[in-house]
Amino acid sequence: MAESIIHRLNADAEGFDAELDALLAWEAVSDAAVANAVESIVEAVKTRGDDAVLDYTRQFDGSTASSLSELELPTARLQQALDAIDSELKAALEHAAERIRQYHAHQKQESWSYAEADGTVLGQQIRPLDRAGLYVPGGKAAYPSSVLMNAIPAKVAGVPELIMVSPTPGGKLNEVVLAAAAIAGVDRFFAIGGAQAVAALAYGTETIPRVDKIVGPGNIYVATAKRQVFGQVGLDMIAGPSEILVVCDGKTDPDWIAMDLFSQAEHDEDAQSILISPDPAFLDAVEQSLERLLPTLERAAIAGVSLRERGALVQVADMDAAVELVNRIAPEHLELSVESPQALLPNIRHAGAIFMGRYTPEALGDYCAGPNHVLPTSGTSRFSSPLGVYDFQKRSSLIQCSAEASALGHTASVLARSESLTAHARSAELRWPRK
Amino acid sequence: MAESIIHRLNADAEGFDAELDALLAWEAVSDAAVANAVESIVEAVKTRGDDAVLDYTRQFDGSTASSLSELELPTARLQQALDAIDSELKAALEHAAERIRQYHAHQKQESWSYAEADGTVLGQQIRPLDRAGLYVPGGKAAYPSSVLMNAIPAKVAGVPELIMVSPTPGGKLNEVVLAAAAIAGVDRFFAIGGAQAVAALAYGTETIPRVDKIVGPGNIYVATAKRQVFGQVGLDMIAGPSEILVVCDGKTDPDWIAMDLFSQAEHDEDAQSILISPDPAFLDAVEQSLERLLPTLERAAIAGVSLRERGALVQVADMDAAVELVNRIAPEHLELSVESPQALLPNIRHAGAIFMGRYTPEALGDYCAGPNHVLPTSGTSRFSSPLGVYDFQKRSSLIQCSAEASALGHTASVLARSESLTAHARSAELRWPRK
Repeated sequence: MAESIIHRLNADAEGFDAELDALLAWEAVSDAAVANAVESIVEAVKTRGDDAVLDYTRQFDGSTASSLSELELPTARLQQALDAIDSELKAALEHAAERIRQYHAHQKQESWSYAEADGTVLGQQIRPLDRAGLYVPGGKAAYPSSVLMNAIPAKVAGVPELIMVSPTPGGKLNEVVLAAAAIAGVDRFFAIGGAQAVAALAYGTETIPRVDKIVGPGNIYVATAKRQVFGQVGLDMIAGPSEILVVCDGKTDPDWIAMDLFSQAEHDEDAQSILISPDPAFLDAVEQSLERLLPTLERAAIAGVSLRERGALVQVADMDAAVELVNRIAPEHLELSVESPQALLPNIRHAGAIFMGRYTPEALGDYCAGPNHVLPTSGTSRFSSPLGVYDFQKRSSLIQCSAEASALGHTASVLARSESLTAHARSAELRWPRK
Repeated sequence: MAESIIHRLNADAEGFDAELDALLAWEAVSDAAVANAVESIVEAVKTRGDDAVLDYTRQFDGSTASSLSELELPTARLQQALDAIDSELKAALEHAAERIRQYHAHQKQESWSYAEADGTVLGQQIRPLDRAGLYVPGGKAAYPSSVLMNAIPAKVAGVPELIMVSPTPGGKLNEVVLAAAAIAGVDRFFAIGGAQAVAALAYGTETIPRVDKIVGPGNIYVATAKRQVFGQVGLDMIAGPSEILVVCDGKTDPDWIAMDLFSQAEHDEDAQSILISPDPAFLDAVEQSLERLLPTLERAAIAGVSLRERGALVQVADMDAAVELVNRIAPEHLELSVESPQALLPNIRHAGAIFMGRYTPEALGDYCAGPNHVLPTSGTSRFSSPLGVYDFQKRSSLIQCSAEASALGHTASVLARSESLTAHARSAELRWPRK
């Protein structure tokens, strides 16, 4: 029997749970050699600053710079890249940036407070971070869209200084990435990368300012360095492979659905594409579309492995069973290719982003619909959210009591004494002596 | 020269920056032996479930239970504890809980969406987590106030199932902790603790359901276990020692300020208390108060070490210099014991909680003012926020486009092709063919 292009499962078949679990299982490779190498790099940057970053950049990226400041690109250089790129591409980047900006403006949170009868004021002061760092991979994973998606929420939050780093092996700059940085309002750009760039942003060096939070994807060295500086600096999530879960009632063009599955599978061989439908004939039709279209893809080799290893077409009894499966999988991307997606929404508990209706391919959300494409993977949408403006704001509680707050003072005193924290109790009792 | 009770610094003196850095420096001890022990425990619980949790609970807590279900306390038992405690203490807990609930209700976020002219709908669906786990330490660090502060935001968020775990060495239950759990609405209570309890919550066992997020403080084993299950489950921050920074204009009773410093110092020997004032005579007066009052404290031994090792009275030129220092330190607790604290507020960029005016000792915020007492420590208020309702909610992006969204389709297609992700481009082009 020829190996099939994708797994076929039936949710009502015996052994389905175990089969699905095996398909979903994914654990990040943790490599002791990488961890040790990264540890030395982080330590060197922490103690030797600029010199260490420069040494590693010469070593790993073949840089010939003699000081770190030579690796900073002036913002005029970013603007120059924007002015020079193809005009249709420039218009597309600007269209996307404007929509991302508009959508994210809805996420900005404002300080709030309220007063009580005795004059007590309570609330939260909400402020942007002082400084954020954006890591952008070099080489084939350098996506201009990621620059927009990571940088714009920081700027909407009001972060005054956004510092971007990106490795440039052999000094080769990606002009579209620079153009996206110009559009997004990146304030400073350093052509450095790897664990050394993460460490420089986390601890600061003579040339590179310490940031409060580092966002953006990276390879295993970058991800490991992020784990090691956790606590010293804020971090976004550490992403696993990308996934899409499509739920279809069987009435969307099977070629459209096949291409949506491919659009995830083409990312990399670990990516995961799953289709759920109550209609077995539709699953057959999509399987045929996949077979027919795969050879026409530019990235057929990658998509083919991804589908064969991690993809699945799953038959379910009905839409209720489909929704139950959605909540169990907690997908990064959920496409509801059905007649009335709004009707399913109240029952969807877990998903990073929900693409509703037949005319919302995931690609729109990846680039330009407005919402962020940085989303929780590997089932973490159970407890995590898309990257947003809220990730670049933080809150301080506000508490102001008056001489009239004796009832509060009394309660604090009773509770503190029950916990044997008597200096706590006495700090209240000094102000409001017990009667 | 007799050793002084607390460091005295002057922000304008030579060497101040280095002195302050040394005082603030704190790094969590990471212990390879602990990490290895925790790794075996987590692995055992992951693979052997109930049996492993029971074995460790018998071994570490001296339990004689023969099944894990024996270690679950029915909610009636929590209510029974509440009915039996001292009535003044019960009233104080209920007063605190009600205020915490009211304040946190202001933090609850609602789903939002908007429609565009061509029918595109964008927004975010905001939902509570399905299930949260609350770790409460046993022994001397078992604080009923922490039960309220961790559990109430989860319940305000609408988390349907809140599972509390707490070790009970020798089977000894803390009745006030149980009473607080009853008030806070904890749904299930297991008398287990340590790394085995964290692992059970993260992975689930036959008896203990898997949760989506684990919150609450714990010892080095608990903190290490939390780091190890990071990614599998959501986590709150991992806290360092508690700190207070008081800014005073010199016109508050020095005994009040001394007691506020003690209320932090009595927590543990690593706790940090710092006072900043432009008035050197006031700093002298507070130092005298500290010396006079220290011997009267129940926890004088702990507070004495904390003040001597990590405490400081810092003279600054003026209030602007004080605010600058606040932003540099980014304290967990900031007390603005001045005439017009509101005037300073716009310039305060980093603090976990801000206590304003002479009648707002930190103890009010620890117990009953309403805001949360779980706050970012060790300078992490630069990028982190107090624990809140938002920590128990998560967001899904919503995107619904129509057949009229050809402009979006075109932009997605152009950008996807520029990134060589042609299946992405074609998923848009199939719906909106290029002209």
